[in-house]
Amino acid sequence: MVYLSFWLAGGSDCGNSRNATLKIQVKELVSTRIFTAYSSITKMSRQSNRTTDSKKMNSELFTLTYGALVTQLCKDYENDEEVNKQLDKMGYNIGVRLIEDFLARSSVGRCQDFRETADVIAKVAFKTYLGVSPSVSNWSPAGDEFSLILESNPLVDFVELPDNHNALIYSNLLCGVLRGALEMVQMAVDVKFVQDTLRGDNVTEIRMKFVKRIEENLPAGDE
Amino acid sequence: MVYLSFWLAGGSDCGNSRNATLKIQVKELVSTRIFTAYSSITKMSRQSNRTTDSKKMNSELFTLTYGALVTQLCKDYENDEEVNKQLDKMGYNIGVRLIEDFLARSSVGRCQDFRETADVIAKVAFKTYLGVSPSVSNWSPAGDEFSLILESNPLVDFVELPDNHNALIYSNLLCGVLRGALEMVQMAVDVKFVQDTLRGDNVTEIRMKFVKRIEENLPAGDE
Repeated sequence: MVYLSFWLAGGSDCGNSRNATLKIQVKELVSTRIFTAYSSITKMSRQSNRTTDSKKMNSELFTLTYGALVTQLCKDYENDEEVNKQLDKMGYNIGVRLIEDFLARSSVGRCQDFRETADVIAKVAFKTYLGVSPSVSNWSPAGDEFSLILESNPLVDFVELPDNHNALIYSNLLCGVLRGALEMVQMAVDVKFVQDTLRGDNVTEIRMKFVKRIEENLPAGDE
Repeated sequence: MVYLSFWLAGGSDCGNSRNATLKIQVKELVSTRIFTAYSSITKMSRQSNRTTDSKKMNSELFTLTYGALVTQLCKDYENDEEVNKQLDKMGYNIGVRLIEDFLARSSVGRCQDFRETADVIAKVAFKTYLGVSPSVSNWSPAGDEFSLILESNPLVDFVELPDNHNALIYSNLLCGVLRGALEMVQMAVDVKFVQDTLRGDNVTEIRMKFVKRIEENLPAGDE
């Protein structure tokens, strides 16, 4: 369970993130094994009223609701760059919560390396929460960068960018989600869109770069 | 395909709704039969790049994204009543688009009466887009009012209302979606929450009241 007050209090204003983190409650279904494996999560208390069965839904209501969110942000902020930043922050806050559900739901343990992380993101995480499986490609020689190639992006199914929003990275929430979720398992990453079908590219490409491993005794904060 | 510009231009400001309506584009998969059955939709032109296969996704990313939307509105507007109103308007704008997808995807034709409408909403629409099937009950003697009883509401899975948002109808988007979708098939309805598990009720209850049949030559507008 995540308090709405959590976001309202510390949400996207870089508030008192440490106290806020302590207030997160984690679902009962999160197993002891995961608590042990990911010590930064163990500060979260347990929740009683969350069912373990997930609801499978078609993506269209989500797609249109996401459109309403982006539209609202475009009204709220002066320029596209600021909207992109807000989407990334919101995504981050979603990612640090979604990882709990992901770890509990999937049988995925700690990944051995960045290549395994890439596969889990593409084949399990995207499939679970967006219903699509991007391919993993364009690895850097050092093995610290790769691309997720989405032939289809459910977030943009009903969307065409108006001319006056050329700098809008419409799906930028996804970058934040990936960044936030990985931070909770001690991985700092850079995530950004480098191609986008909304801008006329043939595919959508999200570039992910491993930055560093995070020390476990520094709890991830809210942005 | 729905233009983002549609919302940005006419969106929730009750703008030039007739022109805006004409700008909506409808998915190619919408059949001729449906065009014929629902003449208010026929003004929409056809889209070329939307695939017909739906993505099935778990509800958690949607739930958290919806939380981000409500949180943003709570920051934007002074009081809960205004947030409730905005959620209803956004839902309406989503509903008038989602109905296209619904009619195209399901094999549902024109409902004979309000009882059939109730069953389709509960058993097909909610199941498709939220992954849950509310029960239909509490019919009024005249047969013009019923309740959708949700034992589980995916929108509130991670949510606890903070004390200073007592008047917030957190899931009010759903009322707007139902109102907007039904308006597109010539049914004016009143929709409101009368019970909510977020407020301590045992179930969530959405009350729907048939108001009138809308003349087909009056295009539904955007709010």
